[in-house]
Amino acid sequence: MVVNLDRLFANRTKLLKSSEIRELLKLTHAPGIISFAGGLPNPQAFPVEVINKCIDKVFDEHILRALQYGTTEGLPLLRGALAERMKQRKGMDCEMHDIIITNGAQQALTLVAFCFLNPGDTYISSKPTYLAAIQSFAAFEANCESIPLNAKGMDIDSLRRNLKRLHNTGVVPKFIYTVPTFQNPAGVLMSLDRRKELLEIASDYDLIIIEDDPYGEIFFEGEEIPSIKSMDTKGRVVYISTFSKILAPGFRLGWIIASEEIINKFALAKQSMDLCSNVFSQYVAYEYINGGYLDLQLEKIRALYKNKRNIMLESIEEYFPREVKWTIPQGGMFLWITLPKSIDARLMFKRALEKKVAYVIGDAFHPDGKGHNTMRLNFSYSEDDVIEEGIKRLAEVIQEEMEGPYEEESHVADGV
Amino acid sequence: MVVNLDRLFANRTKLLKSSEIRELLKLTHAPGIISFAGGLPNPQAFPVEVINKCIDKVFDEHILRALQYGTTEGLPLLRGALAERMKQRKGMDCEMHDIIITNGAQQALTLVAFCFLNPGDTYISSKPTYLAAIQSFAAFEANCESIPLNAKGMDIDSLRRNLKRLHNTGVVPKFIYTVPTFQNPAGVLMSLDRRKELLEIASDYDLIIIEDDPYGEIFFEGEEIPSIKSMDTKGRVVYISTFSKILAPGFRLGWIIASEEIINKFALAKQSMDLCSNVFSQYVAYEYINGGYLDLQLEKIRALYKNKRNIMLESIEEYFPREVKWTIPQGGMFLWITLPKSIDARLMFKRALEKKVAYVIGDAFHPDGKGHNTMRLNFSYSEDDVIEEGIKRLAEVIQEEMEGPYEEESHVADGV
Repeated sequence: MVVNLDRLFANRTKLLKSSEIRELLKLTHAPGIISFAGGLPNPQAFPVEVINKCIDKVFDEHILRALQYGTTEGLPLLRGALAERMKQRKGMDCEMHDIIITNGAQQALTLVAFCFLNPGDTYISSKPTYLAAIQSFAAFEANCESIPLNAKGMDIDSLRRNLKRLHNTGVVPKFIYTVPTFQNPAGVLMSLDRRKELLEIASDYDLIIIEDDPYGEIFFEGEEIPSIKSMDTKGRVVYISTFSKILAPGFRLGWIIASEEIINKFALAKQSMDLCSNVFSQYVAYEYINGGYLDLQLEKIRALYKNKRNIMLESIEEYFPREVKWTIPQGGMFLWITLPKSIDARLMFKRALEKKVAYVIGDAFHPDGKGHNTMRLNFSYSEDDVIEEGIKRLAEVIQEEMEGPYEEESHVADGV
Repeated sequence: MVVNLDRLFANRTKLLKSSEIRELLKLTHAPGIISFAGGLPNPQAFPVEVINKCIDKVFDEHILRALQYGTTEGLPLLRGALAERMKQRKGMDCEMHDIIITNGAQQALTLVAFCFLNPGDTYISSKPTYLAAIQSFAAFEANCESIPLNAKGMDIDSLRRNLKRLHNTGVVPKFIYTVPTFQNPAGVLMSLDRRKELLEIASDYDLIIIEDDPYGEIFFEGEEIPSIKSMDTKGRVVYISTFSKILAPGFRLGWIIASEEIINKFALAKQSMDLCSNVFSQYVAYEYINGGYLDLQLEKIRALYKNKRNIMLESIEEYFPREVKWTIPQGGMFLWITLPKSIDARLMFKRALEKKVAYVIGDAFHPDGKGHNTMRLNFSYSEDDVIEEGIKRLAEVIQEEMEGPYEEESHVADGV
């Protein structure tokens, strides 16, 4: 008898579906395609020589401890160095015991989901929002109440209206999820006023805020805006960041800063999940901060990505039809394109592949499935000399689409 | 207003408790204590020079890929090398696509829990059983139906009786969890017949078996007994193993071998949990296997641990009161002590600490809280020259306890 697995899988497993985007991304790896679809850091941003030096130091000073099991909360040396850095650089009032090390920011999102979400629970996020966060929260069978994003961040009036409505119907949203700085996918930087308002609103309803900040250090210009966590005096903000964009994603290291009560719960959950994060890599990350390498490398990463963003923006300005709108991100890795309403970016994707250029369709980032005429472009990964050519191809695709016969079909797809 | 977290935490979070054992383990780190309590590999078993060589190879040949994000299922090179090894060494009929790389065996257990357990579901395990598995499954709000363990493995008659009873009451147990080879905590090796019977029973009820095999390569003597997975022709066995005992736990690498349908679900779950495992460490593990280092190192680890086991067994025979019983493990890292029924190992723990020796109380490994007169001793971690002294101290503690005044209290504690 062959195993009948359907009787055995948990309910949540039946909800797990292969991400359509992941399938689409596979198509973009075909030869000759200039892809703005991925979300990868550029390998040129990896400090290979420095990592080699840090590893030598780990062998010289910590190797037997680096190869052994470690504490669930993470390497005390690394947590201490992060607490110090977050205090100095970000003005956060935090100590080592407010920090837990995770396997990248993604595990941090899972810890949030695991510890806060019952099946059927509601959380709040902007639309568009980070795709993998939606997936992480959906895996724990939660519902997203999505709030439009505008140029200054999450629309505060809409947030107030929706919170009031939820409150009146007895729904307690478990948290407000936001990527306030150089948001993925839209590249938007939430204004200082908006951050303060968000914190006030969270206070009014006694909610917590999940501040996901993978790109905070990747700024190109303008004044740095304080993190929401740095303004939090009540343990209301769970701050998440990662080494993936400032060291290397292959080490799978992130961290959470939150009140001790929340960190303790995360530690218990993480203990059951994987005992501890990779100890060897934690030592490497510690030596990377402690040796003063991080700040030097950040200068290089910022310069590298700023240049790529500039090339992309200049090309867009030169080639895109004037009906198209785009964000001008002051940092991060992404910009956001809004096409004329008549265009469905999902239907246009096939034509783009034919022209050997790729992007991510914007509706994937909308928990409510809207955003049919939007798309995300990544500028960090492509080589400088192909960005212009890629944008040129994309401009042609859009131009043809504006003249093309897809309008009727797009209305059908819009409701999906 | 300070955040009222109790309204926000998920139900499962309220169940998470700091492990009492973890708290007790902290006490065993006091100076002068000879601890047989931990479950750590000996740092002498870490192939430091070899790891250094493998890392050099990673820098020479794979470094930019090793620092980038990887695929959720794991590095194809490593999955291929593992499939080949499992085929050659273990006679398993598996290919790369039947394997997923995890963050140690602990994440494998979490993937099992996540994908198979709804709140209130039942699974089956022996008693005693691996403590962290109980915790992982409990975090997903499941109930354990526990079956006594005897010298040949899980008691098959009891398993049949209990499965029948569950069947009659309409309960479908989601899986049978077992550590058949050199079990943690008891060191028991399940016989070949018992393995076959287990597979038959699973077939009769169309269930899956979770075969957790961290110690299969750490054998000292006797014939190797085939894994349950190697006899599985129906995709009924989910096989879990780890690099923690054969390379180094600090790299947090394990793997699962299962049918493609199950692996696909695990991959979707893992994607939402942490995108992928540490890519750098996966390359190191690949070079470790591919360079032929693993088999050389296994010889060293087996010799190291066999010697430690021998010292411990000889000391036990010399010093322990004749009323005490113990297992004679042919591999692994643990042996299991059964004290006279009048002794409560939990109450005795304080006296042991006073005498500067430590163990893990056996009831912690019993999902039903029984086993008050049992304890687990680890022989892999202590230095050779302290094992005899530690056992001598423990023998004195037991002797005093047998003469001591705790009997009445032990009956009280027995019901906990």
